[in-house]
Amino acid sequence: MPAFPPTFQEQLRDLFRLRRDVRRFRPDPVPEDVFMDMLDAAHHAPSVGLSQPWRFVRVDDPARRAAVIAEFQRANDEASTIYEEERAQLYRSLKLAGLREAPIHLLVCVETCPDTGHGLGRQTQPVTLRDSAVCAIQNLWLTGRARGIGVGWVSILEPDRLRQTLDLPPTWDWVGYLCVGWPQEEPDVPVLETAGWDQRQPLESHLFQR
Amino acid sequence: MPAFPPTFQEQLRDLFRLRRDVRRFRPDPVPEDVFMDMLDAAHHAPSVGLSQPWRFVRVDDPARRAAVIAEFQRANDEASTIYEEERAQLYRSLKLAGLREAPIHLLVCVETCPDTGHGLGRQTQPVTLRDSAVCAIQNLWLTGRARGIGVGWVSILEPDRLRQTLDLPPTWDWVGYLCVGWPQEEPDVPVLETAGWDQRQPLESHLFQR
Repeated sequence: MPAFPPTFQEQLRDLFRLRRDVRRFRPDPVPEDVFMDMLDAAHHAPSVGLSQPWRFVRVDDPARRAAVIAEFQRANDEASTIYEEERAQLYRSLKLAGLREAPIHLLVCVETCPDTGHGLGRQTQPVTLRDSAVCAIQNLWLTGRARGIGVGWVSILEPDRLRQTLDLPPTWDWVGYLCVGWPQEEPDVPVLETAGWDQRQPLESHLFQR
Repeated sequence: MPAFPPTFQEQLRDLFRLRRDVRRFRPDPVPEDVFMDMLDAAHHAPSVGLSQPWRFVRVDDPARRAAVIAEFQRANDEASTIYEEERAQLYRSLKLAGLREAPIHLLVCVETCPDTGHGLGRQTQPVTLRDSAVCAIQNLWLTGRARGIGVGWVSILEPDRLRQTLDLPPTWDWVGYLCVGWPQEEPDVPVLETAGWDQRQPLESHLFQR
């Protein structure tokens, strides 16, 4: 398993550091071949027992998109009520999703009963099926960033309120609803950091030994 | 958000395709600085509300490692009983973990009640905390592969049977137990594919529209 060139290793490190959760998009369309490359990278993610349980659902229908936007508004309003005073004000000042502007809406689901993989590796930890779909999202996100395309993961939604709207099969679980498009900004640090919401912690505080 | 150079984009595509779940390791140690670079990449994963909920636990104690190996044996024996005839034989022929040889054992956990992030983005979908830790694993995995270091994710373990052995705080959930080391082999395709366990599906069969 030969290593990749040192230049690549350095650029990969930059890629991880420069990947952002994008919430401000330009409305220009994403070229179809670039988006397919992002999906192809996602499809080469690791999956438990080679189960490939990810399901990519492109949401194009305007009425369905509007329902997702409405649900985000509802969930975001509700979420804002847990904060008080200054932090509540700060929360409301944050732009947390680019659902209106993003040219592509992509819902990533996980098939919880896939035929593929024959159950290998997931008897003890079925959640590893979901983990596989999350790795797919991360591959898509990194590929997008390398091409200059932004991705925003909108987690402020109650999946159960959208299942019917999006006509999801009963064995599919919701993983991530993604906005994809050309970003308006090029921030070096996360907007939540710039806005003073929270800071990056030192790595050392996350390391333990047993 | 400028794109990365085309050469990098191509190499990134190769990286995704050549990353393997490694189960056969050489016993040589992994240089400490390389391992720290892998952890640093993990620490720059996306996290919901900038919560950085991953916790990296290096398992060095020989008695603890032995307990993990014993639990893998137990879980693997149990898992093999769900298969019949040829597939049972095939299952038993697969080497599914490199726990004995891998110089580094790393358990990745998620803090389910982090102080960081102030709850942002996880009111509706608390599982996004786990998803963040999974993205951290994927960053570590890719960085390892770029350096020629192999990672194997051992999911055939019952986390509850190891919590006490590994002395995990009650608010930490188990995400992934990883073997890290120099790989013995350099396969272009997953061993599960070579062994005839399952095949890569066409991307098209994983795409849907709504």
